[in-house]
Amino acid sequence: MTAAPRFDKTADPRFDQIIDRRGTNCVKWDRMEAVYGVPAEDGLAMWVADMDFRPPACVTDALRAMLDHGIFGYSGDDTAYRDAIRWWGKERHGEEVSREAIFSTHGLVNGTGICVDTWTEPGDGVVLFTPVYHAFARVIKAAGRRVIECDLAYDGTRYSCDFDAWDAQMEGSGAKLMILCSPHNPNGRVWTAEELAGFAAFAKRHDLILVSDEIHRDIVFPGNRFLPMSSIEGVRDRLVSMTSTNKTFNIPGSHIGNVVIEDESLRAAFAARMAGLGISPNSFGLEMVRAAYSPEGAAWVDDLVAYIDGNRRIFDEGIAAIPGVTSVPLEATYLSWVDFSGTGMTREEFTARVEHDARIATNHGTSFGSGGDNFLRFNLGMARSRIVEAVERLQKAFGDLQ
Amino acid sequence: MTAAPRFDKTADPRFDQIIDRRGTNCVKWDRMEAVYGVPAEDGLAMWVADMDFRPPACVTDALRAMLDHGIFGYSGDDTAYRDAIRWWGKERHGEEVSREAIFSTHGLVNGTGICVDTWTEPGDGVVLFTPVYHAFARVIKAAGRRVIECDLAYDGTRYSCDFDAWDAQMEGSGAKLMILCSPHNPNGRVWTAEELAGFAAFAKRHDLILVSDEIHRDIVFPGNRFLPMSSIEGVRDRLVSMTSTNKTFNIPGSHIGNVVIEDESLRAAFAARMAGLGISPNSFGLEMVRAAYSPEGAAWVDDLVAYIDGNRRIFDEGIAAIPGVTSVPLEATYLSWVDFSGTGMTREEFTARVEHDARIATNHGTSFGSGGDNFLRFNLGMARSRIVEAVERLQKAFGDLQ
Ligand SMILES: Cc1ncc(COP(=O)(O)O)c(C=O)c1O
Ligand SMILES: Cc1ncc(COP(=O)(O)O)c(C=O)c1O
Repeated sequence: MTAAPRFDKTADPRFDQIIDRRGTNCVKWDRMEAVYGVPAEDGLAMWVADMDFRPPACVTDALRAMLDHGIFGYSGDDTAYRDAIRWWGKERHGEEVSREAIFSTHGLVNGTGICVDTWTEPGDGVVLFTPVYHAFARVIKAAGRRVIECDLAYDGTRYSCDFDAWDAQMEGSGAKLMILCSPHNPNGRVWTAEELAGFAAFAKRHDLILVSDEIHRDIVFPGNRFLPMSSIEGVRDRLVSMTSTNKTFNIPGSHIGNVVIEDESLRAAFAARMAGLGISPNSFGLEMVRAAYSPEGAAWVDDLVAYIDGNRRIFDEGIAAIPGVTSVPLEATYLSWVDFSGTGMTREEFTARVEHDARIATNHGTSFGSGGDNFLRFNLGMARSRIVEAVERLQKAFGDLQ
Repeated sequence: MTAAPRFDKTADPRFDQIIDRRGTNCVKWDRMEAVYGVPAEDGLAMWVADMDFRPPACVTDALRAMLDHGIFGYSGDDTAYRDAIRWWGKERHGEEVSREAIFSTHGLVNGTGICVDTWTEPGDGVVLFTPVYHAFARVIKAAGRRVIECDLAYDGTRYSCDFDAWDAQMEGSGAKLMILCSPHNPNGRVWTAEELAGFAAFAKRHDLILVSDEIHRDIVFPGNRFLPMSSIEGVRDRLVSMTSTNKTFNIPGSHIGNVVIEDESLRAAFAARMAGLGISPNSFGLEMVRAAYSPEGAAWVDDLVAYIDGNRRIFDEGIAAIPGVTSVPLEATYLSWVDFSGTGMTREEFTARVEHDARIATNHGTSFGSGGDNFLRFNLGMARSRIVEAVERLQKAFGDLQ
C-alpha cells in the first residue's frame, strides 16, 4: 500500500487545505463527540454528507456581492436561476429542462416530503431500494406512510436489481410511489441504461409515481456514465426528478433543491401543495445556485471529481489491505460503503474499533434500512491527508487481522 | 404642512441613505414596472413589505463571518439560535418561551401553510379578520380550505372588533382555525388586552386553533403597547404564536420564521407535519436570527422605530392635507393603510392617479380581502427624503381636490 505518490499527483491546494470546521455550528465536526463519542480534538468526521471544502469562488463571490449590497429583502424574477438549472442539465447531462418544470424546495429532504404529501395518503406504501439514504424512510414514516423495503441484491462486492423479487412484494402492498436514489447513496452505483429502464418499467407495472433523486449525479468517476431518468422512454408521465447544488458544490446550508416535473398534471398537483404549504426559496440559495451552475462551477466540479477519485483510490487500497473488510466499488458519490462482514466481528465490535480505536465517526449501516447491518458509511469529502490518516488509523485498529 | 423640521430632527444616516435596489433581484423595485406600470427610472416602490434599509451591523457581521469561514454545510446545534429567540421574547415582550416550543419554518407564509395543513382538512373553514395580509387567504385557498372573512368594524378612522357579528357567522361554518394578525397588517392596530382577550374567548367559544401572527410585534409606535397573545389567560391550549426577524430586521430573504407552541399536544401534531414534510432551516437564516436578537439588534430596532415614526408623521400630515384622503392611524408596522373613499373617485381613478400621476407602486386594497376596495397600502420603510417626495407627488396628483 503506497499512497504517497498518488497523493502528490492529484494534489489540489483548494481541497488539500485543512479548514477547521469545529466551532462553526457544523453538525459533522461539532456533534461527533455527542453522537458517537469520537473525540473532538483528534477525531475524524466521516459521517454527515457534506464535504470539508469551500465551494467554487463563483459561489462565494455571489454571496459577497449580496453582502456588499447589504439588503436582504424579498427576491423577484428568478429567470436567471431557472436558466442556470437548465443550462447545467443540458451542458452536463444532455437533459432538456423546461423553465416551468422547475420547483424550488428547501433542499431535497423537503422535496421528498412534498412528493410523499402530494401523491400518497397516510397508510399508503412508498417503495425504497434498500439500503438507501436514511432520510427517505424518516420522512415517509413521519408522514404516517409505510416504507416498503425492496432489498437490492448484493453479491459481496456489487449491488444490483432484483425485479422479480420486488414484483412479488408489490402484490397487495398498497404502494403508490417509489423513490430511486440515482446514483445510489450509499452503495455508490451509477445505474446503467438497462437498470434505469428496469426501474421505469417497474414503476409502470405497479402504477407508481417515480421520484428519481439525482442529487449525486454530478460526482461520477471515470468509466461510469450517469443517465438522468428523464432520458428513459415512457416514464415522463410518472416522473419527478430531483437535482441539487447541495452535494455537487457542497452548499447544503443553502437549503435549496430543484424538483423538476415535466408532466403537466403531475406538475399541477405538486404546484398546489407548494402553494398550500407556502413554500418559496430563500435569496441566498437562489443566488448560490445561479452562480454555481456556470462554466466556472463546472470546471471546479471536474477538479473536485478528480480529487475525490484520488481519495477513493487511496481509501479503497487502504481498506483492501485489511483482511475481511471491503469497500464497495464507488462509481459515484463521495460516500464509501464499507462491508465489515468478512471480519466475523459483531456490529458492536467493528463499530467500537472504528469509533473508539480509530476515532472516526461514520454513519452506521443500520440507519440505511434493510441490509445495512454489517456496514459503515465513510465520507471521503475531505483533505487527502485526512484520508491517508483515516486509512492508517483503520489499519491499526484492525491490525490484529493482518 | 411643515415637514422639514421633523425631517431634520429624526434624521439617521443609516436610514436616510438611499441604496439603489434596482437590478438586485428585488421584487419591490425590479417588478413594479411589470406589475403596476410604475416606471423603474423614477417610480417609488411602496408596495411589497420589506424596507429599503440594511439590517444592523450585527447581522451583516454574522454573515461575513460565515463567508470568511467559507464552508456552508449542514448546521448542528441550534441552542444559541433558540436562546436568542427566547432572550428577545423575554427582553422585549416579557414573554417566556420554552426552548422546545420553537419550530423554524421557512418564513411565516410557510408557517401559516403548515398550521393550516396540521389542523384543518380540505373543505374546512379558516377565519380571517379582514381586510388582512393577503398571503393568508392565498395559502388557505391553495390548500383547498375555505376562507371565512370576518370583517373588522371600521368607523372611517379606526378598526375594531365585532364579536357579535362574528359569532353569528360561525354557526355551521365548519371553521377549525383562525389567524389573527397582531399587530394588524394592513390596518396598523395594536390590539388591546381587552381585544386580545376577546379574540381568545372567540377562539374558545368556537373551538378554533388560534394562530397569532405577531411578525409586526417589534415595530410599535410610542403610546401603544403590544401584548403577545401568550399573555392572555386560558388560551395556551389552542395557541400557536408566530414571530420573526424578517420584518423587524428587514431580512425576509433569509426565509426563516419562528413558530412557537407551548401546548404539548399541539406541538406534537405540528412536529409531525414538520418531520413529514422534511422541513429544517437554512444556515444563513439561523445565523441571522441569532445575531439579530441581541442587545445590538435591539438598539437598532429602537432607532428604526423612531425613524419610521418620523416617516409616518410626515406621511400622515401630508395625506391629511389632501381632502377626502385619510391614512388610518398607524399604531404599529411600517405599512400605512390609506382610505380614498372620501374623494368620491372610483377605485380605478384613485389608483391611476397614484400609479400613473404620482408614479408610486402600492398594494391594492382589494388584495386584502373584504373591505379593502377603497384603500391602498403604502410602505413607509424607506429613506425620509423619499417619503417627502411621495407626499409631494400625491398632493400634486390629487391637487385638484385642494
Ligand atoms: C440521496 C440524497 N437525497 C437528499 C439528500 C439531502 O438533500 P438536502 O440537503 O438538499 O435536503 C442527501 C444527502 O445526503 C442524499 O444523499
Ligand atoms: C402578517 C404577515 N405575516 C407574514 C408575512 C410574511 O412573512 P415571511 O416573509 O416570513 O413569509 C408578512 C409579510 O408582509 C406579514 O405581513
